[in-house]
Amino acid sequence: MIKRKIINDPVYDGFLSIDDPVILQVVEHPYFQRQRRIKQLGLTYLVYPGAMHTRFSHMLGALNLMGRALDVLRQKGVAITDEECRGAKLAILLHDIGHGPFSHTSERVLVDVPHEEITLLMMQRINDEMHGALDSAIEIFADRYPKHFLHQLVSSQLDMDRLDYLGRDSYFTGVSEGIVGTDRIISMLNVHDDELVVDEKGIYSVEKFIISRRLMYWQVYMHKTVIAADQLLLSILRRARELDPSVFHLDPHAADFLDRFAEIDDDDIMVAVKHWQHSDDEVLRTLCSNLVNRHLPAIRISNVPFENVESDYFHGTGELHNRSYDFNDQEIKVLYKDGRCVDISEASDQLDRHFLEKQVTKYYMYYPKI
Amino acid sequence: MIKRKIINDPVYDGFLSIDDPVILQVVEHPYFQRQRRIKQLGLTYLVYPGAMHTRFSHMLGALNLMGRALDVLRQKGVAITDEECRGAKLAILLHDIGHGPFSHTSERVLVDVPHEEITLLMMQRINDEMHGALDSAIEIFADRYPKHFLHQLVSSQLDMDRLDYLGRDSYFTGVSEGIVGTDRIISMLNVHDDELVVDEKGIYSVEKFIISRRLMYWQVYMHKTVIAADQLLLSILRRARELDPSVFHLDPHAADFLDRFAEIDDDDIMVAVKHWQHSDDEVLRTLCSNLVNRHLPAIRISNVPFENVESDYFHGTGELHNRSYDFNDQEIKVLYKDGRCVDISEASDQLDRHFLEKQVTKYYMYYPKI
Amino acid sequence: MIKRKIINDPVYDGFLSIDDPVILQVVEHPYFQRQRRIKQLGLTYLVYPGAMHTRFSHMLGALNLMGRALDVLRQKGVAITDEECRGAKLAILLHDIGHGPFSHTSERVLVDVPHEEITLLMMQRINDEMHGALDSAIEIFADRYPKHFLHQLVSSQLDMDRLDYLGRDSYFTGVSEGIVGTDRIISMLNVHDDELVVDEKGIYSVEKFIISRRLMYWQVYMHKTVIAADQLLLSILRRARELDPSVFHLDPHAADFLDRFAEIDDDDIMVAVKHWQHSDDEVLRTLCSNLVNRHLPAIRISNVPFENVESDYFHGTGELHNRSYDFNDQEIKVLYKDGRCVDISEASDQLDRHFLEKQVTKYYMYYPKI
Amino acid sequence: MIKRKIINDPVYDGFLSIDDPVILQVVEHPYFQRQRRIKQLGLTYLVYPGAMHTRFSHMLGALNLMGRALDVLRQKGVAITDEECRGAKLAILLHDIGHGPFSHTSERVLVDVPHEEITLLMMQRINDEMHGALDSAIEIFADRYPKHFLHQLVSSQLDMDRLDYLGRDSYFTGVSEGIVGTDRIISMLNVHDDELVVDEKGIYSVEKFIISRRLMYWQVYMHKTVIAADQLLLSILRRARELDPSVFHLDPHAADFLDRFAEIDDDDIMVAVKHWQHSDDEVLRTLCSNLVNRHLPAIRISNVPFENVESDYFHGTGELHNRSYDFNDQEIKVLYKDGRCVDISEASDQLDRHFLEKQVTKYYMYYPKI
Repeated sequence: MIKRKIINDPVYDGFLSIDDPVILQVVEHPYFQRQRRIKQLGLTYLVYPGAMHTRFSHMLGALNLMGRALDVLRQKGVAITDEECRGAKLAILLHDIGHGPFSHTSERVLVDVPHEEITLLMMQRINDEMHGALDSAIEIFADRYPKHFLHQLVSSQLDMDRLDYLGRDSYFTGVSEGIVGTDRIISMLNVHDDELVVDEKGIYSVEKFIISRRLMYWQVYMHKTVIAADQLLLSILRRARELDPSVFHLDPHAADFLDRFAEIDDDDIMVAVKHWQHSDDEVLRTLCSNLVNRHLPAIRISNVPFENVESDYFHGTGELHNRSYDFNDQEIKVLYKDGRCVDISEASDQLDRHFLEKQVTKYYMYYPKI
Repeated sequence: MIKRKIINDPVYDGFLSIDDPVILQVVEHPYFQRQRRIKQLGLTYLVYPGAMHTRFSHMLGALNLMGRALDVLRQKGVAITDEECRGAKLAILLHDIGHGPFSHTSERVLVDVPHEEITLLMMQRINDEMHGALDSAIEIFADRYPKHFLHQLVSSQLDMDRLDYLGRDSYFTGVSEGIVGTDRIISMLNVHDDELVVDEKGIYSVEKFIISRRLMYWQVYMHKTVIAADQLLLSILRRARELDPSVFHLDPHAADFLDRFAEIDDDDIMVAVKHWQHSDDEVLRTLCSNLVNRHLPAIRISNVPFENVESDYFHGTGELHNRSYDFNDQEIKVLYKDGRCVDISEASDQLDRHFLEKQVTKYYMYYPKI
Repeated sequence: MIKRKIINDPVYDGFLSIDDPVILQVVEHPYFQRQRRIKQLGLTYLVYPGAMHTRFSHMLGALNLMGRALDVLRQKGVAITDEECRGAKLAILLHDIGHGPFSHTSERVLVDVPHEEITLLMMQRINDEMHGALDSAIEIFADRYPKHFLHQLVSSQLDMDRLDYLGRDSYFTGVSEGIVGTDRIISMLNVHDDELVVDEKGIYSVEKFIISRRLMYWQVYMHKTVIAADQLLLSILRRARELDPSVFHLDPHAADFLDRFAEIDDDDIMVAVKHWQHSDDEVLRTLCSNLVNRHLPAIRISNVPFENVESDYFHGTGELHNRSYDFNDQEIKVLYKDGRCVDISEASDQLDRHFLEKQVTKYYMYYPKI
Repeated sequence: MIKRKIINDPVYDGFLSIDDPVILQVVEHPYFQRQRRIKQLGLTYLVYPGAMHTRFSHMLGALNLMGRALDVLRQKGVAITDEECRGAKLAILLHDIGHGPFSHTSERVLVDVPHEEITLLMMQRINDEMHGALDSAIEIFADRYPKHFLHQLVSSQLDMDRLDYLGRDSYFTGVSEGIVGTDRIISMLNVHDDELVVDEKGIYSVEKFIISRRLMYWQVYMHKTVIAADQLLLSILRRARELDPSVFHLDPHAADFLDRFAEIDDDDIMVAVKHWQHSDDEVLRTLCSNLVNRHLPAIRISNVPFENVESDYFHGTGELHNRSYDFNDQEIKVLYKDGRCVDISEASDQLDRHFLEKQVTKYYMYYPKI
């Protein structure tokens, strides 16, 4: 008889369950529990107040989808051993573990190590503590495992990461654009020549997935007010560092780097910002009070670059771009009943190359609200 | 032409809107924005990871329901002036503004002023700043306003507070028990002899509401693991205070009490707890590490009290009780088409007095997990 | 590689899938396809316009839940062979196949054979055609199979039939009372001493299930306007038979009884009713026009019987009763971690024997609307 | 005090309400009640078993959306009188009243009058009976009313008809593609120079709406198996007429044409088909048995026309086409804050003219399944 742990999750009809003791042990690790204190979407909650959900819940959600996907592939006759199942599950469970607080914003400022690298370091540390139980997981994560499609389930145009976060971000923001029919897409997955593909019947679902992602991109991930808030936090961190270089400073070469990194989360940043409202420095004081009380910069979006704009702690410019589907990245392949395997841009009547390749670039300028 | 502000909210089909400039001004007040940093359900997220939603979103949600309820009552011919509408809306918007971080847990320890009192103080402060714009709201909130039913919309067995939090907590925990058919209940509201009542057709909806509340009570609000986590936080705060009485200390008689109180939120507590993991005191250190890494106490529930149990920072007992419907509190009255007005316990075939009055008391004991 | 047939179903996130060729063959049988033309809730659509869903979709939904339940039980170590799985699935798939059109209404009038008997006849007929493939299914359905819990999955207080219809009827009527957390209940199922039981953690879910059923009973299944419509249809069928005894007459002893029975569905009844609007008989004409144009009788409900009421085609009385939970029927047992197994009425704090045993009887009287 | 009638509808959180006595009277008219017996999506239920919903529920749903849209426009300062509100509501309520059974299929065969014409005839008949109460409604429906935007709410690229049916068809089929954020779109409606437009903030919602419609088109409305079923029904009706020209024959010039037309609904067609299973004509017999038991033709879809295909009752070809957005039709205009008003194809970064104008044509061939 297997011990099952049930974890409540509103996105998947109330709950998901874990029955692998190794996976349960990883979930209980402090590095993993720490992700309970890091929001999946950073400051997005200033625009979508419901978006308080954490990386912790996303990583468990992605694990849940991985379990379903592996079941589907096995039912279709794809050979996957139990050890490989565990490896793929651990790889997706930990794929984001190296993220720091507000990482898309703070990464460049606080710690000069990309989160992918920290993820790998943390995986290795846990692997050491667990005597190699994550060996396969790390191989799969780093795309060194022979069965390439296992890596694609973790990281590709149609991986379990994206499937979970689109659905989850949609649930917590209330933006219905992200509802992508996850179950249906997963039921259409297949493997062909060691590549993750989609059965012919899944074309419409994939089309919807690509379009949903693009709509979510502009409506949530690149929402202009979120960009404005991010810029404000960035200015705060830069100014605070300028005034005191030791602020949130971590030495990547220190022996205790990982543990110290793991102690910093969203709460620390916000408490510091509140604290700095009483700083002697007027610039820092004003910036912090603006963030705490949600007096965000004004922001304008344009299809052409802004010119001759002053740049300081209160003003600046930047650019945003998105492409639905990245041809330099891995393609989504469709498997026909007759055995042909073609790219979605050819298989789809809706999404031709013109649409998919189209790169949208927008320019923004922010400045104090009067 | 009226300026409408749209606020995204997944609970109400994506968004709610505000078009009263006075209400918008209150929403932008720092005391209100601060509630973005206080979770509605405290440590419940340790059991329901999705339950990160804030008091901020709840208070806006309750405002939204108040608007619908007032519309329904006016359509049914109940006389409510525009000024009274605004007053009732502001009263519900601000009904929880005095809550501190993890207030059900910390209230007894950190600040010795009940949150209802702080709420009133904050309302008065905002009212002063806004030159009396909240006069009616305060009268309605304090039940001093002539039209008693307006107060009942803010605080009674069937108020907009409960209707929003049941639905909202249900959405974010994923426990479907709290889905109560809010729209239908609101559409059945009426006023009879200055009392808020429910039209005859709404009996089933009210039955469901009462039962849902009871189920949510045991399944979420009094979940035993949440109780265990609360006890752990309580022990931490007590121990920290013992070691250093100035910790989070506020003087309710100080001139800047409100502003200082307003600066403390969930983030501060959690950052302190993380910090105390490195305390010299072993008890505090252990307790804090346990909370940060979610090593919660074991807890046992029983229908009879536990006896001869030691009580220290790691062990203790307590009791829980709930009654579906409080007869000492205001009753829910049902208005029949023929003009009769009777209590729900008489009107309902399902919920007789026996069921409604039944007081359930449970006893718990917590102790370190081995 | 297994062939999977996907069947679209809005109740289960869009679709369910079947991969057993024997089950697929049964689904394609004319007796089964016929259930596409029989509404699950008869005339209820006159009150809940969305309630057009068919017995066909319910029977497939119940099959889907059976698959999940069997998976859960096997994961918990309950021994169930593949043959038994198929048997239990076929038994639930066919459990309602003998229903005729508007069967709760018409059964007494049109065909004097209870639908359970016709179900068994049809199962045997299909079994003959399929050379005994339904042997186990029939044993399980008739409760003659050694493993009694398999029958309980098909028919008991907590069977897959009820779980599907509560959720489905809730979805199509829009009455949220029927949402019962099906996945959670199924995940809590277990077997103890050859009896289907519920794990300790599932107590709240079972409480909710029992209460939901009771609320759905009064709000949907016994909705007074539906009762009025049923009485109208009953009067029509009685009057039509009186005028012409051959109307919809079937001889249960005729060799082609089953095939002729299988040809009559909701459409035939409604077309006849429309046709009879032009009857020479004024009573029949009026009754039929009333049903077609939804001029339903007025109906009054009371807790005491109506006395001295005339009874004819336009007037009548009757009674309704419901008890949440039938002690003469099988009990729902809760299995504690320590091995104890007690009835839900003892295990639950909310639902004591008083509540569960309470028999609610109501009396109704219908008469022409003026 | 206004009398409100509540109509249950799962699509709109359980119910919608009507409080205009004139509208209630129209809903009770036999021509309107008849739409309870005509499915919104014809034979689509053979592919999506939940799609049993009726034109009755769609027309009420569209009425509900019209009420919300008019409220939004009035709040934004658009001048609309109470009489115009009622007119627009009645126009949308009745916009589909002339549809016959399986009308997209049968229209060409059974009655040689387009459904739009019958709709107008029925509206005029009801108007006569109600002494001119529908005068404005008819003007608005026929686009002869001075305020053109009222007609656009009834019939345009972004009318209440489409908004309701996309959401409703999505709900009952379970295909999530049709969920279009109806509330949000409606809240973004505005009027500029007597044209219905969308506020700038609504661009993403409109993009999603256009894309959803296109996806629903291929996934539901033009689903190949539905096309196959439609062809089968068409062959049946053609063959039956050939054998007996009086079958379902109506003379559009007869005085009682409308009443006789109103008596034919889905049930009549299906009962006839069942009856014809026993026809002397082998072709008709086979075709009918195939439909009743869901032995549908095989169908192949191609991007190029099929050539040299025989055409008889069992074989045939045809073509399907769809364009997301019809430039010959009315455009969707976006209103910017600065007063500019441009077409969505210019305003959108996602949907350029290339995408929107793209006409997709597919060819199909059907033939008996072996």
